[in-house]
Amino acid sequence: MFKTITIIGFGLIGSSIARKIRRVAPDIHIVCYDHSEDVCRKVIDLNLADSVSSDPAVVGGSNLVILAVPVGAMPGIVQSILPHLTENTIITDVGSVKEQVVYDIELVLPNDIAFVAGHPIAGTEFSGPEAGFAELFENRLWILTPTAQTPALAIQHVQEFCENLGANVKIMPPDIHDRTLAMTSHLPQLISYMMIHAADRLGQDLHHDVISCSANGFHGFARIAASDPVMWRDVYLTNKDHVLEAIDRFQNTLSQMRHMVENGDGQGMHDFFSASRARHLKHLESRKS
Amino acid sequence: MFKTITIIGFGLIGSSIARKIRRVAPDIHIVCYDHSEDVCRKVIDLNLADSVSSDPAVVGGSNLVILAVPVGAMPGIVQSILPHLTENTIITDVGSVKEQVVYDIELVLPNDIAFVAGHPIAGTEFSGPEAGFAELFENRLWILTPTAQTPALAIQHVQEFCENLGANVKIMPPDIHDRTLAMTSHLPQLISYMMIHAADRLGQDLHHDVISCSANGFHGFARIAASDPVMWRDVYLTNKDHVLEAIDRFQNTLSQMRHMVENGDGQGMHDFFSASRARHLKHLESRKS
Repeated sequence: MFKTITIIGFGLIGSSIARKIRRVAPDIHIVCYDHSEDVCRKVIDLNLADSVSSDPAVVGGSNLVILAVPVGAMPGIVQSILPHLTENTIITDVGSVKEQVVYDIELVLPNDIAFVAGHPIAGTEFSGPEAGFAELFENRLWILTPTAQTPALAIQHVQEFCENLGANVKIMPPDIHDRTLAMTSHLPQLISYMMIHAADRLGQDLHHDVISCSANGFHGFARIAASDPVMWRDVYLTNKDHVLEAIDRFQNTLSQMRHMVENGDGQGMHDFFSASRARHLKHLESRKS
Repeated sequence: MFKTITIIGFGLIGSSIARKIRRVAPDIHIVCYDHSEDVCRKVIDLNLADSVSSDPAVVGGSNLVILAVPVGAMPGIVQSILPHLTENTIITDVGSVKEQVVYDIELVLPNDIAFVAGHPIAGTEFSGPEAGFAELFENRLWILTPTAQTPALAIQHVQEFCENLGANVKIMPPDIHDRTLAMTSHLPQLISYMMIHAADRLGQDLHHDVISCSANGFHGFARIAASDPVMWRDVYLTNKDHVLEAIDRFQNTLSQMRHMVENGDGQGMHDFFSASRARHLKHLESRKS
């Protein structure tokens, strides 16, 4: 379907896409455009692309261009590659925020270029071209957020492409994506950074290593704090309103819980914990089937 | 050292202790006292103890008694077993809260019985006698919180016992334990329950399954929501003040972060995230060595 695919940004996601293409469709010509000479060298060493360049002209002739850079960098990159794109090229992206990205890119898009915004719900706390692996998208959700402006055929082609990478595609409006992910991804990431900060501060006040006395649960929270600060800064800058909504909803729940703890409301806590536990187990059950 | 050991409560922790004793010291006579007939039957089926009973008199003749029940149940159980204990018996516990437990138990303790409060920093989200495994304590921290009243020899014996189970013992005052664990364990558990609640509420408002759009980070948070609500309710009831301190410290951090997001303070966020990331990586490094 796509004979030549450019991937812009060979981090965890970009390099995983390249690895999976290499495995399932070795005839596809992969182009790497990355502004970092260091990343370009690694991509050559890892044999993840057939053409590698830090010059935007390299995108010429591509049928599909995948933006896999922090969302804040996307508008600038699209501006720089537009003059080099061939007619009927499809652009997609893998950014964690969609409304702002869709707005920025559709604003500058010529009529003969389609943009299908997307977001694979897959990742680890590691970054860089070495961190990727071909199985990353296996059975994972890949959300596409087309608009009224997006050609139906382009949506279909990108959907098939994502499915060929192993993912399950779900289509939803950009704002619903952003409100949802603000809660299920952006807020947890923020809490991870905050938990470490708060525990470290307590350790300073108690003059002992509080974080070394952490168990299982804390490790599950802290793990994603290894994630790339630039990528996440861009998420909070571009999805500000929905992240604030998620913070405020969480804040309400926290106040409710603080009240129960302060009042020693054992029954209230037990009911709350049991309901969350049941909701979680129901979700685990649905993932199995 | 201990010829007969009673374990009271054969959940994840109690049954893991029994499994490890079976492996490293098969000559030790293990007594199971559990008020649940169902648990007693499972302990017999799994061959985790040599004497099994739901009658407190079964503890007679034990050299060591390990309380492995929710902390709220401990004072009542100690009252019920005291008449049956032999001279020089040592009692220890594995509860997640220490100050209140130490206070409650020391209040009723006769002179010839020692209490060495303890807390293995090990666990999973699963509960019950089937959930245990002998390796649970391998290289994990086991905190002991003796007081001025605790005989030095009893501390030494319990410490050796924990080390024989594979754990690294650390001694600290009960209140420091409780302030520390409120932050590194009790608050994360609360956040796990709250995150699911808040995400579920958003899903109801958006009329779509928000939780099904969750990734890696959310799963790391949600996993421990499968934990036992009764055990955790007791933690928040008995460690109220320190949990409120942890909530308030976290609340301050959340307000600071909300402010940065609202103001689009990219530099502030980047610095905050980078500092937490570095602190986390430093901790991972220290665990390796």
